[in-house]
Amino acid sequence: MTVSEYIFEYIAGYGCKTVYMVSGSSAMWLTDALYRNKNLTAICCHHEQAAAMSADGYGRINEIPGTCLVTIGPGATNAITGIAQAYVDSSPLFILSGQANSRLLKYAKETGIRQQGCQSINLGPMVKPITKYFAEVMDPDDIPQIMEDAYYAAMEGRRGPVWIDVPVDIQNRQVSEKCISRAQKQIFRCPVIKQEDIEKVLSLLRKSERPLILAGNGIRNAGAVEELKRICEMLSIPVVTSRGGLDIIESESFYYVGRPGSYGDRASHFAIQEADLLLILGCRLSISTIGYYPERFGKNAVKIMVDIDEKELAKNDVPIDHRILANVLDFLKILVNKIGTSRLLHKEWIEHCLKNREKYPTIQKEYSKEMPLNEYYVTGCLSKLTDGNANIIVDTGSVCNIVSQSWIMKKGQRYLISGGLSCMGFWATAIGAYQENRALIAIAGDGSTQMNIQEFATIKYNCIPLKLFVYNNNGYMLIRHNQHNYMNDRFLGVNPESGIQTPDFCKVAEAYGIKAVRISTVDELEEKIKYVLDLQETVVCEIICQEFAPIVPRIASRVMPDGSLKAAEFEDLYPFLEQQE
Amino acid sequence: MTVSEYIFEYIAGYGCKTVYMVSGSSAMWLTDALYRNKNLTAICCHHEQAAAMSADGYGRINEIPGTCLVTIGPGATNAITGIAQAYVDSSPLFILSGQANSRLLKYAKETGIRQQGCQSINLGPMVKPITKYFAEVMDPDDIPQIMEDAYYAAMEGRRGPVWIDVPVDIQNRQVSEKCISRAQKQIFRCPVIKQEDIEKVLSLLRKSERPLILAGNGIRNAGAVEELKRICEMLSIPVVTSRGGLDIIESESFYYVGRPGSYGDRASHFAIQEADLLLILGCRLSISTIGYYPERFGKNAVKIMVDIDEKELAKNDVPIDHRILANVLDFLKILVNKIGTSRLLHKEWIEHCLKNREKYPTIQKEYSKEMPLNEYYVTGCLSKLTDGNANIIVDTGSVCNIVSQSWIMKKGQRYLISGGLSCMGFWATAIGAYQENRALIAIAGDGSTQMNIQEFATIKYNCIPLKLFVYNNNGYMLIRHNQHNYMNDRFLGVNPESGIQTPDFCKVAEAYGIKAVRISTVDELEEKIKYVLDLQETVVCEIICQEFAPIVPRIASRVMPDGSLKAAEFEDLYPFLEQQE
Repeated sequence: MTVSEYIFEYIAGYGCKTVYMVSGSSAMWLTDALYRNKNLTAICCHHEQAAAMSADGYGRINEIPGTCLVTIGPGATNAITGIAQAYVDSSPLFILSGQANSRLLKYAKETGIRQQGCQSINLGPMVKPITKYFAEVMDPDDIPQIMEDAYYAAMEGRRGPVWIDVPVDIQNRQVSEKCISRAQKQIFRCPVIKQEDIEKVLSLLRKSERPLILAGNGIRNAGAVEELKRICEMLSIPVVTSRGGLDIIESESFYYVGRPGSYGDRASHFAIQEADLLLILGCRLSISTIGYYPERFGKNAVKIMVDIDEKELAKNDVPIDHRILANVLDFLKILVNKIGTSRLLHKEWIEHCLKNREKYPTIQKEYSKEMPLNEYYVTGCLSKLTDGNANIIVDTGSVCNIVSQSWIMKKGQRYLISGGLSCMGFWATAIGAYQENRALIAIAGDGSTQMNIQEFATIKYNCIPLKLFVYNNNGYMLIRHNQHNYMNDRFLGVNPESGIQTPDFCKVAEAYGIKAVRISTVDELEEKIKYVLDLQETVVCEIICQEFAPIVPRIASRVMPDGSLKAAEFEDLYPFLEQQE
Repeated sequence: MTVSEYIFEYIAGYGCKTVYMVSGSSAMWLTDALYRNKNLTAICCHHEQAAAMSADGYGRINEIPGTCLVTIGPGATNAITGIAQAYVDSSPLFILSGQANSRLLKYAKETGIRQQGCQSINLGPMVKPITKYFAEVMDPDDIPQIMEDAYYAAMEGRRGPVWIDVPVDIQNRQVSEKCISRAQKQIFRCPVIKQEDIEKVLSLLRKSERPLILAGNGIRNAGAVEELKRICEMLSIPVVTSRGGLDIIESESFYYVGRPGSYGDRASHFAIQEADLLLILGCRLSISTIGYYPERFGKNAVKIMVDIDEKELAKNDVPIDHRILANVLDFLKILVNKIGTSRLLHKEWIEHCLKNREKYPTIQKEYSKEMPLNEYYVTGCLSKLTDGNANIIVDTGSVCNIVSQSWIMKKGQRYLISGGLSCMGFWATAIGAYQENRALIAIAGDGSTQMNIQEFATIKYNCIPLKLFVYNNNGYMLIRHNQHNYMNDRFLGVNPESGIQTPDFCKVAEAYGIKAVRISTVDELEEKIKYVLDLQETVVCEIICQEFAPIVPRIASRVMPDGSLKAAEFEDLYPFLEQQE
């Protein structure tokens, strides 16, 4: 068996079925081995950025590492953004890259010469910071152990991408049988949860009158969603979710309060500041979740944080009272067992939270009357009409804020965003997130759509029945707001008046042979969305929206005399209320 | 003056007039300072990859650092491919990126946490390997010296890109006057050329009967093109050029022999192997120039290599007899002075070289009759019709090989390729290479055009009168050949039958509001090219070419029984000749 054959046999072996790639001569034997592997299908993207994002999407949806195959040099560097995104969002994936002849690579590494070998670049130093594991295959016999170690790294603890760089002269070399049989599977180890930690948590929970769970992406990754729901019911604890955990709980749940953050909602912010106990599960408390004053986040609460990543636990911004290093699933299972049948009732507290949810809806009634269309209103309609059996991919910028604030989550829906890195062009992740028998929806701003527009060719060619909703707000709306708020309307690079103009996306879609639908008015909105969702084919649906719609509520900032920015308090969302409860 | 104001004042101060950017909130004060700087214009691209390439193109054409402004995280990582390209091709440029708050960045660097700060990534470790200088601005008062040091690094010796990462809280801070006045300009130092080296070279030149100059990108960068021409005439020495030095000498010159390389021409390969003296000037002897047997490159010649990069001189592959560390311009000037009026005549040798040039033309006569169109023939026509006063940008893949083999270079033309990294999508470099009063032409394959297709919006919006010729060979032709030659026609990801289909580029261009012209037959070729070249506006001209045209001559390889590849000798180009002279 050759190195390349071994690699793809290994990848097919753990259940991966699709590899996202861009072909290239320096990955020729890898490509050929993929071609010959009967258990794998290749999807060829038109830019490595999209191939990496697709592999990321595949990994998130299927909960095994997705795979991306790229060539040497620019093929590899083009994938970096997608890999960095997978790293910060804890998404497991394999990236395989072609590389120059091993002798040349060795020389380049030893001497630090700018380049040795056509198209080559010494990749290790550049990608180690954004991967959990990186290996150059310099000896064919190393590959069995490399694959084991890489898989372990991708899936163990907090997940992430792993990168294997394979010199072209090694790709087609034979691997010796004895090395294959000798490769050692690593045993997954989880941190041991201390009995006293569980006791402590239980005792705090029993004492608490206003407990609240803040749940994040770590719950999803640990497969602990069902356990979370059980805990909520058993202890009657309401839940708020960070962006990464948005699809953990459906919007109609009795226990769902809201989604805190820089662009959050009032109900969740009030709940966090009123809670007397905050149980933070698989959520890394990023600034976009907690705002600008970590020391006052959950200011009335005893705070317990359960996380698999020691570095996240060790952060010194939010004053955490109890830090528990654990796989969230293990933690919740033990907790469920300990609770037994006992129930705590916090009916008043939950009803108080729900009252706020009703009192301060994110989608205001008047939005329905605005023209051009208001993106909150559009999102409300779209989410109402979207089936529960759907994967929803939401691109970055204002669209991510607006949709994440206002999407009505249904049971069964998966909701993917570029959480930590916030990459424009994330919509193309839909290529990897496609599953037969589930609807596939992406939502992107016009600026973000452009950043992966070449992938219109990929979705068309592969008949991926994506429904891409382009919220066209005529450029980069989030930055436009920013330049309005802080720069006195000195606009640069945000709309056609200031240097950037996106195309007519219906025309572009049609040029790629894709069906296109445009929506411009309130009257046609629901009907046309229904029409689009019912079509079996790929559709680009461009929705003409307001250029300057307020993105609210949000944590607002203002410029101070010394040129710095000062943010408002976490509970004091803009537009500011007259009287705070 | 704020940090951001200082940065752009400095950049305008050395003569830069245009900054290529994609806006973003974490670069907000940088963006605003650029807006307010009256000596700078911003061109907003639709992807940072293109912004970086444009800055690279600007630097190459204007011989000062181009400038690229991007935002934090994905904004920065999206630019990496373009910056890596500038690094290997010795192109000076400044890249400025927005970054998280300096306190958060510091924390991320110290702890190695995956992310601290929205969208942030610790950039230094990732981009230091592809830049000559990298700095994070952690103190506003550091910026004056950072700018000096960065400029020095970009322009000194072998040029390259420099990267300045500016935390958002630092961007708007004041720089103290005393730090501005204290900043020290670095003095450019060139290696001192030893008298004895010059004497040695002169004595070897005087003894030589078949001298040959191999000239590369280093001559262009050192501004030594005119000196080279003088040397050729004074000593009657013929010249071959590497890809990076293609536009150093016009094709009709009496001293021009050809362009060696993996995809070279016979005349230059014969000349190199027949020469008794090889003077290698500013050429790093990459494998794509010298082939696969460095020890037999210029096998009959005494080899003198003059280069500014010690690491390139120290390479141990081609056995160099005399290595001279020098700025090529300095070296040539001293040499010219020393030669005085003496002339060496190598008439027979030159005529022998020219005879080979005539005997083995790259564009074969029969190409003109082929249908679909042959790319060599198309290139011949296009280059004949292109003005001398033109900047020509040639994308990568088969197109780069074919056009670089067959372009008829005219006096005054600049010819840019992605030399070392060979980045698909390089055509967008044309955005930065645009100069008023000079024609602007780009040539790209259909696969490569896709890799920056979002920039159709940029060229349209900015009215850049680019003529983009898309050689449509229905996918990735170079890899298709590769899979044909080595994989027994197991095609994957190279054409519509194997996983990838590029769009109708005329339709896409029109969707972006760009005039489109399609050429499909020999009859219409010249007339339509003329029509396109004469138009004042932006045009995308799609030329339907053969899918499987031979790319010859070339250094061919074959697969050996052990799975490795074995290449032919440098002088033995495919198609192999019956009898070699």
